[in-house]
Amino acid sequence: MTDPRHPRRLLYEGLLRRALLEDLGGAGDLTTDAIVPEGARAEASFVARGEGRIAGLRVAIDALRLLDPTLDARIEHGDGADASAGARLAAVAGDARAILTGERVALNFLGRLSGIATATREIVRAIAEHPAKVADTRKTTPGLRLLEKYAVRVGGGANHRFGLDDALLIKDNHVAAAGGVRPAVERARTAAGHTLRIELEVDSLAQLDEAIALGVDLVLLDNFSLRDLAAAVRRTGGRAVLEASGGITLQTAPAIAATGVDLLSAGWLTHSAPALDVALEFEVRSGG
Amino acid sequence: MTDPRHPRRLLYEGLLRRALLEDLGGAGDLTTDAIVPEGARAEASFVARGEGRIAGLRVAIDALRLLDPTLDARIEHGDGADASAGARLAAVAGDARAILTGERVALNFLGRLSGIATATREIVRAIAEHPAKVADTRKTTPGLRLLEKYAVRVGGGANHRFGLDDALLIKDNHVAAAGGVRPAVERARTAAGHTLRIELEVDSLAQLDEAIALGVDLVLLDNFSLRDLAAAVRRTGGRAVLEASGGITLQTAPAIAATGVDLLSAGWLTHSAPALDVALEFEVRSGG
Amino acid sequence: MTDPRHPRRLLYEGLLRRALLEDLGGAGDLTTDAIVPEGARAEASFVARGEGRIAGLRVAIDALRLLDPTLDARIEHGDGADASAGARLAAVAGDARAILTGERVALNFLGRLSGIATATREIVRAIAEHPAKVADTRKTTPGLRLLEKYAVRVGGGANHRFGLDDALLIKDNHVAAAGGVRPAVERARTAAGHTLRIELEVDSLAQLDEAIALGVDLVLLDNFSLRDLAAAVRRTGGRAVLEASGGITLQTAPAIAATGVDLLSAGWLTHSAPALDVALEFEVRSGG
Amino acid sequence: MTDPRHPRRLLYEGLLRRALLEDLGGAGDLTTDAIVPEGARAEASFVARGEGRIAGLRVAIDALRLLDPTLDARIEHGDGADASAGARLAAVAGDARAILTGERVALNFLGRLSGIATATREIVRAIAEHPAKVADTRKTTPGLRLLEKYAVRVGGGANHRFGLDDALLIKDNHVAAAGGVRPAVERARTAAGHTLRIELEVDSLAQLDEAIALGVDLVLLDNFSLRDLAAAVRRTGGRAVLEASGGITLQTAPAIAATGVDLLSAGWLTHSAPALDVALEFEVRSGG
Amino acid sequence: MTDPRHPRRLLYEGLLRRALLEDLGGAGDLTTDAIVPEGARAEASFVARGEGRIAGLRVAIDALRLLDPTLDARIEHGDGADASAGARLAAVAGDARAILTGERVALNFLGRLSGIATATREIVRAIAEHPAKVADTRKTTPGLRLLEKYAVRVGGGANHRFGLDDALLIKDNHVAAAGGVRPAVERARTAAGHTLRIELEVDSLAQLDEAIALGVDLVLLDNFSLRDLAAAVRRTGGRAVLEASGGITLQTAPAIAATGVDLLSAGWLTHSAPALDVALEFEVRSGG
Amino acid sequence: MTDPRHPRRLLYEGLLRRALLEDLGGAGDLTTDAIVPEGARAEASFVARGEGRIAGLRVAIDALRLLDPTLDARIEHGDGADASAGARLAAVAGDARAILTGERVALNFLGRLSGIATATREIVRAIAEHPAKVADTRKTTPGLRLLEKYAVRVGGGANHRFGLDDALLIKDNHVAAAGGVRPAVERARTAAGHTLRIELEVDSLAQLDEAIALGVDLVLLDNFSLRDLAAAVRRTGGRAVLEASGGITLQTAPAIAATGVDLLSAGWLTHSAPALDVALEFEVRSGG
Repeated sequence: MTDPRHPRRLLYEGLLRRALLEDLGGAGDLTTDAIVPEGARAEASFVARGEGRIAGLRVAIDALRLLDPTLDARIEHGDGADASAGARLAAVAGDARAILTGERVALNFLGRLSGIATATREIVRAIAEHPAKVADTRKTTPGLRLLEKYAVRVGGGANHRFGLDDALLIKDNHVAAAGGVRPAVERARTAAGHTLRIELEVDSLAQLDEAIALGVDLVLLDNFSLRDLAAAVRRTGGRAVLEASGGITLQTAPAIAATGVDLLSAGWLTHSAPALDVALEFEVRSGG
Repeated sequence: MTDPRHPRRLLYEGLLRRALLEDLGGAGDLTTDAIVPEGARAEASFVARGEGRIAGLRVAIDALRLLDPTLDARIEHGDGADASAGARLAAVAGDARAILTGERVALNFLGRLSGIATATREIVRAIAEHPAKVADTRKTTPGLRLLEKYAVRVGGGANHRFGLDDALLIKDNHVAAAGGVRPAVERARTAAGHTLRIELEVDSLAQLDEAIALGVDLVLLDNFSLRDLAAAVRRTGGRAVLEASGGITLQTAPAIAATGVDLLSAGWLTHSAPALDVALEFEVRSGG
Repeated sequence: MTDPRHPRRLLYEGLLRRALLEDLGGAGDLTTDAIVPEGARAEASFVARGEGRIAGLRVAIDALRLLDPTLDARIEHGDGADASAGARLAAVAGDARAILTGERVALNFLGRLSGIATATREIVRAIAEHPAKVADTRKTTPGLRLLEKYAVRVGGGANHRFGLDDALLIKDNHVAAAGGVRPAVERARTAAGHTLRIELEVDSLAQLDEAIALGVDLVLLDNFSLRDLAAAVRRTGGRAVLEASGGITLQTAPAIAATGVDLLSAGWLTHSAPALDVALEFEVRSGG
Repeated sequence: MTDPRHPRRLLYEGLLRRALLEDLGGAGDLTTDAIVPEGARAEASFVARGEGRIAGLRVAIDALRLLDPTLDARIEHGDGADASAGARLAAVAGDARAILTGERVALNFLGRLSGIATATREIVRAIAEHPAKVADTRKTTPGLRLLEKYAVRVGGGANHRFGLDDALLIKDNHVAAAGGVRPAVERARTAAGHTLRIELEVDSLAQLDEAIALGVDLVLLDNFSLRDLAAAVRRTGGRAVLEASGGITLQTAPAIAATGVDLLSAGWLTHSAPALDVALEFEVRSGG
Repeated sequence: MTDPRHPRRLLYEGLLRRALLEDLGGAGDLTTDAIVPEGARAEASFVARGEGRIAGLRVAIDALRLLDPTLDARIEHGDGADASAGARLAAVAGDARAILTGERVALNFLGRLSGIATATREIVRAIAEHPAKVADTRKTTPGLRLLEKYAVRVGGGANHRFGLDDALLIKDNHVAAAGGVRPAVERARTAAGHTLRIELEVDSLAQLDEAIALGVDLVLLDNFSLRDLAAAVRRTGGRAVLEASGGITLQTAPAIAATGVDLLSAGWLTHSAPALDVALEFEVRSGG
Repeated sequence: MTDPRHPRRLLYEGLLRRALLEDLGGAGDLTTDAIVPEGARAEASFVARGEGRIAGLRVAIDALRLLDPTLDARIEHGDGADASAGARLAAVAGDARAILTGERVALNFLGRLSGIATATREIVRAIAEHPAKVADTRKTTPGLRLLEKYAVRVGGGANHRFGLDDALLIKDNHVAAAGGVRPAVERARTAAGHTLRIELEVDSLAQLDEAIALGVDLVLLDNFSLRDLAAAVRRTGGRAVLEASGGITLQTAPAIAATGVDLLSAGWLTHSAPALDVALEFEVRSGG
């Protein structure tokens, strides 16, 4: 299965290049260059060491292809697949040095992204009986946002803002700077124009009422109790999208989703999900 | 306390710049620019929300300074400090827009690096009664290796290779490609010259004996049992540095360290340590 | 007057640097370096040669500051001002070589951006008695979108999408690829999530009805007659934002705005507005 | 017909890449990725909507090829052709998503460059019976100089300096800084060496005489009357190339050219020529 | 003495940054960071170890300033000075770590550029009694052309072309491709326009005559004997600039210059001149 | 023969690109573009003009391939070969314009790297009867270290540190800053961890004794007399690698090597070796 919104290679190629150069350092892969004959061929398999939702397999293969543009790859469990421990995700064949040199960078991407997809999948499953969606945040790893948000989608989650420029999210500090919720929302509306949505962070039901009255598109309910979340849903009556934020875990998510909010957003999906253990198993084929 | 080996700003400034541009997107911080008056000043505090070892505070402040070069900062619990939940790490004062715009990027660095330092500290403490050291690996986040390895040092750990170019680590695939341990080590020695060390990964005591006989500098004992680790220490008798790898956790570490190995290396320090929860609390001061 | 949403320097500094290097070429400003003594000081004035709305003055000064970081500048008619021919926009004082070398690049930015702001102002004034807004498009100069869209705002216009990533605009080709309006909108809604708006391009009233029924946020009425625009406004009844596109000129705009549409979008604001004539007048002061 | 001096792709590939990334933003083409199936193929035609001289068609196609390296293209009216409204310039076939995503950037280049070529062609035709040539200036769009000067050549014009480094042009401010025309020219000659030409800007016939006496290669006659231009030609007698500058329009050009000057230079060719209206018409072919 | 055409820092700052990052590698200056306390101050002197013409001192200091922007520098024998062995060129004071870390990169620039300036000075002196000038070529170190050509000027030499774009130099292969000297020169003239000069490489007096007849601006006499050089000067009679190329050494230069040619060009000035031995002598001042 | 450690293209491709753009300047290869028909094909041969050890041939060909990706190349005397004057190193066939345009950059790399390899070979041969090795230093050309150190290997030399990050080299200034040899070495050992070696620069036998006592891995004997070098070898008795530095020339090297030191390091291999004279001889084949 291929995710319908895999990012274009142009968007992450520079990132792959920098990651490889970071690992190659000033002198390159001394070990491989010393030991493996130039021109030797190898076959290798990406293998999952733990169970999880795969994300980043094409990215990992693209990393290898920056070292061997003619690398052959056959995907068996691609992005979006749930792979059991031991499953072969893909088989690659190409220049032995290129594969050995690129192995770690390829796996660093694949393990991290699959970890995020797996964590997202878990919480999506936990609230599957409710209409609420799981969303990410901007608490992503510097430089990897595009890919990490892709991994969230692969896990079944929804993407919140990609950056400070694709929606307006008014937080308490903005409100303080504006001297109140009303002037803050009004200034935001002027800036937003017709194509952008406005979200307001509130920490009480009273503020929620004000937000609804001002007609904001989304309301971020920050650390609301279950009782207040339920009250918020009732009072809003569909006039705004409601996002619950703060304290979302596998344990708490079902009850929160049961309150009827539209979104549960969790920063740890991208900043603290453990990596999935994946490996690249080699079979060197022929001398150079 | 200041860590004696904080990376030079020149080494990570490009990374900070890319991270900020990633968040600013094509149009910048629409919310802040719409709501906060140009020229407004703000004071804010970096505050720990959980207990942990702080790492990345100067990096976070440098991120803000790319937006406001005249930002004032006073550090209270700097890199290397163990901060309790609620502790103020630093106070900053400067352009209100700059601080609001840079907040998330600054925290993304600080939270991740402090998370790594904290995880490292835990395992270092767990084996404190043994002479063994805790080391990182190359399983780092693409693009962040310099900073993540710095965070490991702040946590009391030691750095293994920074890249493929600063030591030779011969793995099973290299051995297979060379047609045996001996030719692999010999080719590596030629390439290593006088300034680089050679490490060999082994998975049995027999291979260890061969490694010692060949005079390699370090031996990576891959997934050895406690019994075999102890045997390896005895057989080696100090002729090589011994590194235990695989299955190192807070629980297993003390027993592994007790075998007498020199190093315990763990990839999860950098790829799966949860971020430390840190926040930036604002007090907007004056209009523009 | 300062526009409240001037882009941050971090967002366009790389562009200024590339523009200066483009002009300096491989050997630098041969004429100035040969003739003007090192260390000579100069005062100069940015002067409008024609009447217009100023935009890009701070950008132009920032260009000079990349060559002389200590340059002094005093703004008299800044971004957003309507300057008459002959008006002094700003006075600068600094290194004579820096100012002479940076002059052309600074003026190239200032003239282009002021030309866009002036053209936008004209059409905004032409429809001032109507509530409709003037909007730009993605038909911008490659590499200059951020600044050109800023110039449109300075001229009183509104910004449409900054890029392919901050709203979904479904065009006829997308509809064809999806096999109809309904599947296209449904797929877009899934991708849009909660923070992004969806716009649909239609070329008939029948398509408009379908769009309204599907609940899209904005409808782009492509080359509609005045009669059809008015009909569209009536049928829509405020359920979607209506954008008139195609054939918007100073002459046609008032009648189009009078139909009651919300937005008039015009690509020529950014791709064909003539530059405003601005100059930098020097007074060399002292030898080096 | 192919222009004999099309710039090498290496020279503008970085520019294309930046332009595409500018449009893709942080998340890519949300609309296309949501709606068009991965792997779908499309055919499309570049079509002129107005009459004009085509320039930038290969550049536009190269933009698409950064998204689909295997894109097929068949050029019908290439750079240098005069296309009537409705003429098909080229047919392309390739990945449907790539073509849809790259469309706007490709057209932004093609429209702008063809607009410049068309404007240049008009003024070249207006003075066709005279030997004088039409030349551009350094008043180009930041970042696009290489391509805009190419478009001028395609329109039949000549290129003046590409940058501050490929000839010396002494302006009034340089003369003032040097303390007179003679020292300015002498210093310039020392710097110019044997491979570079020297041009002097003058605003009176007296200054022209001094320039000729000093043996400069070109003289820029700034805002001379027709009478003075004719006098300048007589006095110079071929000893220097004469360039008329200021107030060159389609209307004034013939009389100016008739005075016998060698060059008419006009900044508006590159900073104010309206874009040519070009479109990309699609025919989606097959699902993915 | 300061050379009047020192390149602007903007032109070489990126080069300095890359050179420092090349030396810092992935982990920075491990030795200095380990041993020298943070905040320690140092004074150091750039000292010539051999006699030579200094070039690149400001460049070297700028390299250190990328590591310590507040570094103090006092120049004693700057670019253009002839320093005896042991002479102090400049004294710097600043952060001890920054100076130690940047030392090698700073010296690598200074030694190479001073070597080029010294070699140029020698050959300029050797032909001092003749009017001929010494010129460089495009046989420069990749990436360093701007600075190496600056060093040639500091040595008293003249700069030939900076790149393929600032004059036309027709070589034998171009002539072959064009099918003769005449078509080659004619095509070149069309492309050159009014601001660029044309040079033709010839290898016989017959070709020289053809070149003169075609009115080229410069003629490159490739490996002519002294007798033929003298004949070339007589035949040309000042109608073109004559450049002798091939076999120019300190020994041969005087006789070649005596033939009356205008230019002697020598690639070895930039590709084979030995570096001048320069050192940075430290005095560490105070702990951190 | 192919050197077993040729750097990966990914490591130097950016350098090639910058070198080509440096030569192409803002307008490209005016001469070739004007004269050689688009699409013309050419064959050309890289030919040695002097005898030497070839290094950089693949790099040179890669430079041409950035201009013509389909260029055909057949290597006859590749990197590591000793070519006599007149020997053909490689034959290439491809786009005539590409080859002419890239010629100078390709040769600049090839000539410099072969010059370094040849100089290294000479000194390696001079000490061939001794076990000592010849090593390079960090005195390399800014930006070219990777390739220059590769050339040293091709010449038979060994590589010392690639950068400040892959071994610790304690110099006199470090010792002074630490307040003695002992604290300097101790701090270095802490920072070095298990994978990096430590070298200490000494200038007396007494310091050597201290170094040996402290267990450093390498000792740099700075400007020792032959007598002291021999004494150093005796005293050390194999407990550390000994590196002789200072005054290493073809003449002095044999006697120095005869003392029994392990390494002779010489900066001039990379900063002052004259380039090998290589040329590219063309045969234009067919019109475009």
